[in-house]
Amino acid sequence: MTEERKISMAVIRRLPRYYRYLGELLDNGVTKISSRELSEKMKVTASQIRQDLNNFGGFGQQGYGYNVEYLHKEIAKILGLDKTHTMIIVGVGNLGQALANYPSFSKRGFNLIGLFDINPRLIGMSMRGIEVMDIDKMEDFVKTNKVDIAILTMPKTRVKETAENLAKWGVKGLWNFSPVDLFLPEHVHVENVHLSHSLMTLAYKINEAEELDNGNDYKPF
Amino acid sequence: MTEERKISMAVIRRLPRYYRYLGELLDNGVTKISSRELSEKMKVTASQIRQDLNNFGGFGQQGYGYNVEYLHKEIAKILGLDKTHTMIIVGVGNLGQALANYPSFSKRGFNLIGLFDINPRLIGMSMRGIEVMDIDKMEDFVKTNKVDIAILTMPKTRVKETAENLAKWGVKGLWNFSPVDLFLPEHVHVENVHLSHSLMTLAYKINEAEELDNGNDYKPF
Repeated sequence: MTEERKISMAVIRRLPRYYRYLGELLDNGVTKISSRELSEKMKVTASQIRQDLNNFGGFGQQGYGYNVEYLHKEIAKILGLDKTHTMIIVGVGNLGQALANYPSFSKRGFNLIGLFDINPRLIGMSMRGIEVMDIDKMEDFVKTNKVDIAILTMPKTRVKETAENLAKWGVKGLWNFSPVDLFLPEHVHVENVHLSHSLMTLAYKINEAEELDNGNDYKPF
Repeated sequence: MTEERKISMAVIRRLPRYYRYLGELLDNGVTKISSRELSEKMKVTASQIRQDLNNFGGFGQQGYGYNVEYLHKEIAKILGLDKTHTMIIVGVGNLGQALANYPSFSKRGFNLIGLFDINPRLIGMSMRGIEVMDIDKMEDFVKTNKVDIAILTMPKTRVKETAENLAKWGVKGLWNFSPVDLFLPEHVHVENVHLSHSLMTLAYKINEAEELDNGNDYKPF
């Protein structure tokens, strides 16, 4: 990929939202849409939409708008959703189980193939037809099966070591739900979901609005 | 808040991470730290750290560094973590249960006071000492109790209507886990956790790296 073509992660992070809206349009039988109409639906400026989508060579035709199905497919390709990905979940507590039962993942080609935990009460249980295995068996499993993504929903104390092992064993991506930052070799990709960060940001928004209402302000000193 | 003081959301979104690192330093008995040391730990440039923290008047002293406890407290204040927030969960499926059992929320002053669902098999069950109530009782509950935050972990088909009602009934913030964008009155703050967006971004990173390895490139046309 040449330097000029390198798409910023800010744009990439907006693509899933375009993908979602286009999917809904498709479901509703809409075959074409202008950037203006899409702009009204998504509450994003039409110029932002054109700019974002121009990154990929532009899919729109002047005076016609976007072909919804085509654009939806192309975004899927860019995101790699035209391929399937195998996933394992490491840590099958409440959150791990919630993710194991997420119906939309498999619809998009993310196929769960293994569940691992350390807790003897969970080992041997079956979820979505997959048996929870002892974490001791994970090395063998990962080395034998092609595992693309490991979902880390385990206690934070063991995350660093586990992530390093998974990287060594050939997992390509880690979806990390622990409040721990992972610094790993470049060939392993990490995406963090720090739930408490998100909740704190919400608290900030609420708090800031109240301070303004009260005529207060954060006072630097 | 004067225009000059307005802190960008980009900075705000970085604060929870500072807060987490400072909390860990505190737990380890560290009382002061330089921006350089913090930079090495967090893998962020020291100048970014100084810039971010200068937004709040600056907490560092030349040649001394940051007072960890003080900085930790001040960031907590900025984020509104010095106050308590009441929360309800709307939709107590797998994800709702996972969040209900998240231990770190209550530690930070986010207190769960209500659980609601539509499913008769869940209504009446108790989680963390709180009984799951019929969603029909939510209006009364929200109007009677001061509810700061509603966590939306319900099916997406009913999210929009529920969010609009909660806003009308006085809830200040919505933590939305559904793949739906909520456009609400300004006094209601929304923070989205779009899990599938995050997973797609991870897929992109994996896919992009593989395309590069294969000497391929995304071909605009």
